[in-house]
Amino acid sequence: MDLWADLDELRQRRSEKWRRYPAAVLPLFVAEMDTKLAPPIRAALDAALSVSDTGYAQPDALPTAYASFAGRRWGWHPDPAAMALMPDVARAARTAIELASSPGDPVVINPPVYPPFFEWLEMTGRRLVSVPLRSGRLDLSGLEAAFAAGARVYLLCNPQNPTGTVHTPAELTEVSSLAAAYGVTVVSDEIHAPLTLGEAVFTPYLSLDGTGTAYAAVSTSKAWNLAGLKAALLVGGSLSGIPEDTVSSTGNLGVIASIAALDAGEAWLDDLRAELDVNRRWLTSALSELGVGCRAPSATYLAWLDLRDHGLGDDPAPVLLERGRVALYRGLDFGPEGAGFVRLNFATSPALLAEAVDRLETALRTGRRPGRT
Amino acid sequence: MDLWADLDELRQRRSEKWRRYPAAVLPLFVAEMDTKLAPPIRAALDAALSVSDTGYAQPDALPTAYASFAGRRWGWHPDPAAMALMPDVARAARTAIELASSPGDPVVINPPVYPPFFEWLEMTGRRLVSVPLRSGRLDLSGLEAAFAAGARVYLLCNPQNPTGTVHTPAELTEVSSLAAAYGVTVVSDEIHAPLTLGEAVFTPYLSLDGTGTAYAAVSTSKAWNLAGLKAALLVGGSLSGIPEDTVSSTGNLGVIASIAALDAGEAWLDDLRAELDVNRRWLTSALSELGVGCRAPSATYLAWLDLRDHGLGDDPAPVLLERGRVALYRGLDFGPEGAGFVRLNFATSPALLAEAVDRLETALRTGRRPGRT
Ligand SMILES: Cc1ncc(COP(=O)(O)O)c(C=O)c1O
Ligand SMILES: Cc1ncc(COP(=O)(O)O)c(C=O)c1O
Repeated sequence: MDLWADLDELRQRRSEKWRRYPAAVLPLFVAEMDTKLAPPIRAALDAALSVSDTGYAQPDALPTAYASFAGRRWGWHPDPAAMALMPDVARAARTAIELASSPGDPVVINPPVYPPFFEWLEMTGRRLVSVPLRSGRLDLSGLEAAFAAGARVYLLCNPQNPTGTVHTPAELTEVSSLAAAYGVTVVSDEIHAPLTLGEAVFTPYLSLDGTGTAYAAVSTSKAWNLAGLKAALLVGGSLSGIPEDTVSSTGNLGVIASIAALDAGEAWLDDLRAELDVNRRWLTSALSELGVGCRAPSATYLAWLDLRDHGLGDDPAPVLLERGRVALYRGLDFGPEGAGFVRLNFATSPALLAEAVDRLETALRTGRRPGRT
Repeated sequence: MDLWADLDELRQRRSEKWRRYPAAVLPLFVAEMDTKLAPPIRAALDAALSVSDTGYAQPDALPTAYASFAGRRWGWHPDPAAMALMPDVARAARTAIELASSPGDPVVINPPVYPPFFEWLEMTGRRLVSVPLRSGRLDLSGLEAAFAAGARVYLLCNPQNPTGTVHTPAELTEVSSLAAAYGVTVVSDEIHAPLTLGEAVFTPYLSLDGTGTAYAAVSTSKAWNLAGLKAALLVGGSLSGIPEDTVSSTGNLGVIASIAALDAGEAWLDDLRAELDVNRRWLTSALSELGVGCRAPSATYLAWLDLRDHGLGDDPAPVLLERGRVALYRGLDFGPEGAGFVRLNFATSPALLAEAVDRLETALRTGRRPGRT
């Protein structure tokens, strides 16, 4: 399949990934993919442009399309009437936090985690309660302690960015019991849900019993690379009181592209997952040859690289950028647990991924032999 | 020129204007246009899709494109470095209000005015201070009284929605003196600025002397019908402290389409303005035959219809919808001054506009002869 765009095409993009750094740098930092648009999405967008459909968005068939997709993929049948249109998962998650708690309330997150989680708590004036992952998995006793200490909301990253952890039904069931016991509202960020790799099986949090008050924030933006088109959904919980501007802030082409992705983009998604699996295997073995620690992710196209043995200090990303001209995401942005780590986005062609690993190797070698460059 | 889309095409759109009501209703409520995309915009979007450019937005050349456009159109030369990327004018205006004042501070607006102005003050927790228009123009002595009474911000609608008033240089100069005298920050919503009709001349507020602390919220979304693509700019003032998510909330295709509009969409814009002028003239004369009061707007594609003599009460819009199957914007949403008014969007083909006026006539006639329907 003709999945990956080549460098000529990528350099023509105006998106963040391809415009942040000069052309000498290979960018693997932000979570955009180097894929070509899935043909059904391209067709839907072409059709929309041909009728000049550039006015304000409305939910249209997006809730029902998501419900059908969730049913086919995961046997989960959410009620389309319990979904609200949102411009992105960021806004969906913040809205859920605001509906479920008040300024000053404690909200639990599990670093290392997607950096804006910290920002969202700041923007909503909530108090951060950190329960770090333990060996890449949820710390259930840590969660219980935080819930018992008065947490109001638990912002779960399911699957987890940056580790690619897919939480198990057993873990999530325990989370739901704890949440019920302590009256905590769970907000599950499921943006990476379609991107399971190999044998991994995703469990939608709301598909579990006893999660009636919980929310899920979902979108097509990661799995089909539509983040710049601005459409997402907030599912479940109590949706009354949502600010009106969430709908007018949504992109109409995002709604249209998302419906096409969910209705007709599954074959493409499965091809993508197969290619990401190939990249994942190649990358983890290449990294292990370089002595870089990395647990193979079970979902997402993100790898969490442990460089603590490489003498690059707590913040290796700028060093790698300078020495290897490869842009990775700064580990410390994911919380203090990210000291000595970087995140690498492997949603790119095998050729560019190999080039990135070469650059990483150069940077690490340069690091080991100061004075010889 | 092939400017207007026909009903077949319009009915295929998924935007708010064409999906809110059933097909029996002619929708002239929300501010979307029934135009076909300007060819340079269509070409830029096609090019973006052909390289699958659907990732996160960044400002790219949008600030410089706006600055050049403003220079050519209005002789105004804003500094592109003093512009911040925003998803829409709503967010731009709210951001400016938040940068310039604190919760609880009084903010002045001039009803009848675009309904979300009220919503934005609520969302930001500001206190509404109403200084209504007088005979469709700014009430400068009312403004002075409100400024003297402690207003922190003045949210100006320039040109004014729904009346289509283009504020004069003399009026705006007086506003700027008052703002300086009383330490009020002016936030000028200039979304309709390119849409002057006939001889009207728009004055960018920031082009006046002594407006260094003021903000303008601008975009291509009204003049080129791109509201669903989500891109705008906040210009001027002090831009530090803008929340980071404003950029990631922006649509990448919005940025791309906006640059094309500003760089290469002026001929199309002038054709549009000529056609809107034709519609404006026809509409105001048709309305006067129906005994409906309407001052011809000097800008925008909006007409503010005075139905107070027609016995339809304070809220004529639902009556017109029911009796005439024509959807207009409820006057009361623009403030209590809108009692007995409705707003009509005339950015549609002459044929559909005539159909709308027929429906209005039917509704008014039905109103006059109760029992005969
Ligand atoms: C876990 C997680 N949540 C949210 C987002 C942001 O999503 P959106 O662009 O829809 O706000 C990302 C982006 O990578 C993510 O990884
Ligand atoms: C005066 C005014 N400001 C703002 C807006 C909304 O603009 P946006 O969709 O960019 O938020 C409109 C829409 O019609 C408007 O008339």
